[in-house]
Amino acid sequence: MRQAEILIDEATARQNIRALTDKAAKHKLKFRPHFKTHQSAEIGNWIRDDGVDACAVSSLHMAEYFAFYGWKDIMIAFPFIPSQVKDYQNLAEKVELSLFISSPATMKHLAKISAPVKVIIELDTGNHRSGIYHTQDEIISELIRQINASSNLKFVGFAVHAGETYQAKTKNEVLDIHTANLEIFYNIRKKYPDALISYGDTPSAMLAEEFGQVNELRPGNFVFFDLMQQNIGSCSTSDIAMQVKCEVVDIKPMLSQVVVHCGAVHLSKDYLLNPYGKKIFGKVVDPESHGNVLPGAEVISLAQEHGIIRMNENQISKVSVGDFMRIYPVHSCLVADMAVSYTEFRSGRLIRKMKY
Amino acid sequence: MRQAEILIDEATARQNIRALTDKAAKHKLKFRPHFKTHQSAEIGNWIRDDGVDACAVSSLHMAEYFAFYGWKDIMIAFPFIPSQVKDYQNLAEKVELSLFISSPATMKHLAKISAPVKVIIELDTGNHRSGIYHTQDEIISELIRQINASSNLKFVGFAVHAGETYQAKTKNEVLDIHTANLEIFYNIRKKYPDALISYGDTPSAMLAEEFGQVNELRPGNFVFFDLMQQNIGSCSTSDIAMQVKCEVVDIKPMLSQVVVHCGAVHLSKDYLLNPYGKKIFGKVVDPESHGNVLPGAEVISLAQEHGIIRMNENQISKVSVGDFMRIYPVHSCLVADMAVSYTEFRSGRLIRKMKY
Repeated sequence: MRQAEILIDEATARQNIRALTDKAAKHKLKFRPHFKTHQSAEIGNWIRDDGVDACAVSSLHMAEYFAFYGWKDIMIAFPFIPSQVKDYQNLAEKVELSLFISSPATMKHLAKISAPVKVIIELDTGNHRSGIYHTQDEIISELIRQINASSNLKFVGFAVHAGETYQAKTKNEVLDIHTANLEIFYNIRKKYPDALISYGDTPSAMLAEEFGQVNELRPGNFVFFDLMQQNIGSCSTSDIAMQVKCEVVDIKPMLSQVVVHCGAVHLSKDYLLNPYGKKIFGKVVDPESHGNVLPGAEVISLAQEHGIIRMNENQISKVSVGDFMRIYPVHSCLVADMAVSYTEFRSGRLIRKMKY
Repeated sequence: MRQAEILIDEATARQNIRALTDKAAKHKLKFRPHFKTHQSAEIGNWIRDDGVDACAVSSLHMAEYFAFYGWKDIMIAFPFIPSQVKDYQNLAEKVELSLFISSPATMKHLAKISAPVKVIIELDTGNHRSGIYHTQDEIISELIRQINASSNLKFVGFAVHAGETYQAKTKNEVLDIHTANLEIFYNIRKKYPDALISYGDTPSAMLAEEFGQVNELRPGNFVFFDLMQQNIGSCSTSDIAMQVKCEVVDIKPMLSQVVVHCGAVHLSKDYLLNPYGKKIFGKVVDPESHGNVLPGAEVISLAQEHGIIRMNENQISKVSVGDFMRIYPVHSCLVADMAVSYTEFRSGRLIRKMKY
């Protein structure tokens, strides 16, 4: 037991899922949520309950886990890993598998798979993570030729992850990035009229109202949201479906600090900067009112297992050693990844997740 | 399988263990290494091979794990957690257990344990994490009175973690913090001539040559070391016993970048700043020479599973998709915590660790 319990509010998560499922339907987009955020078959079922039948994952192991739980249309949204050819092959024999090619050098490895695979070319439109830069027309067309020359591989289309929206500080910054991507997609569409354009990041999925040539939405974080998304403007705190529950183990009124059993191994070291440029690793949920935070009560420092929360005198006066606090995390995906399981917020029911 | 393999160089780790065991013996200090860094019974045995029979851990679960593997003298170096009284009790019936009290408010909870427990008062000497501030004489003496009034509890002494040394940028900064602590310990010794003074952080354990009134050393990170320690001056890169092995999945010569399957879920988001103030999450090991890094080849960005390495043209020309690289991590404790198991660097043998 890591002891810091990860609470998931099913009702809020289901609202988040419904909102984006509806939005995708309204815009006639296929919805392929990214399951790396929750890594849970049960939460996958909440999404299935809204009629979704496709998912994206970030690892082979995650693909195998969701394949076991009945998902048939799985995209591994991570560059093809040459050493894992046999495992990809095994999976491709069981489900409709879409794989990313992110570099021409990968082609010789990918071509070793002797089972049907849908191949997606990952494009870099400015995020500069993985993918072929979108202007490299010759490389792209040569790659498509090579993919289709292989009897088992089929070129399906393109995927883009506009991860740069996570660095945006305002809604308008997100929308500027989104608009630039939509223009790039128009150019791609001219050259490849039948290609899938799969696109996905939570900020643009939440904030944009036009999707141009996009065919498929692939966000992940929206299921839980977190302070990073709230900061960008993708959600409000009441939409955050994850809280980290932790025990107060020390109180230091003279330092305006409370120590909780909730460290880097629970919250991760991802942070936001407050207006004074100081790091924040989480905010304390107001126990009296749903979806609000205690003003100024923030996790200001993390050790491996210690969390240090800054609180004012009045707030501290209401806290005792042995009390439990709940914290909204900065980045729910990393909290979820480190979690062993979740606890449903209202019922206290265990929600199982994938293990490594 | 998370796929990024965590390599542990047993020979180097054993050298690191031997060096600090010898240093503790030379200074007539009890050596109680902190096992949160490795969380592995096998690595615990390497330490036992050097005659060490006491350890510190950061959680109850970790204490139970090492108790199962035969450790009899265990200190839980984390504030007492009130909700876990029964588990502490169970453990105290089996091993010689030392527990931290970090706040007077904890006393009523601690007193519920009806098995023999050694109680350590955690002191804050400037780190401002947990512990009673060292000048609060009346609180400290009243607490000792209360501890000894309980039939099962025995006041043993004080523990200090000078975690502020991790923020030091030079050896002299570490030594300044250390010297200030040694003065505090002289004052404590005057008041409590028989009390244990347990002290421990890797930078001061490595760099200091005087330990004054300290009786016990409690560092953890020294088993593996990492770039943070190398940066502080506690070790050289050739002392780092942990490398993260990961596969190259994309190469972008025009961006001077290589993409590896090694993200925040493998390396953690802990970082160093390079001289230009840019974040570094790891450095690439030179495959041709033991203990060196490839100049300038650094992990400059992390997504959940992607790592982006900056490399120059010449370095990139030697890399292919499907190659493996090895990376020195910034903070080995967090890498170890997230790891499922380790692989011994030379033999390829599995080294098991604790699971949650």
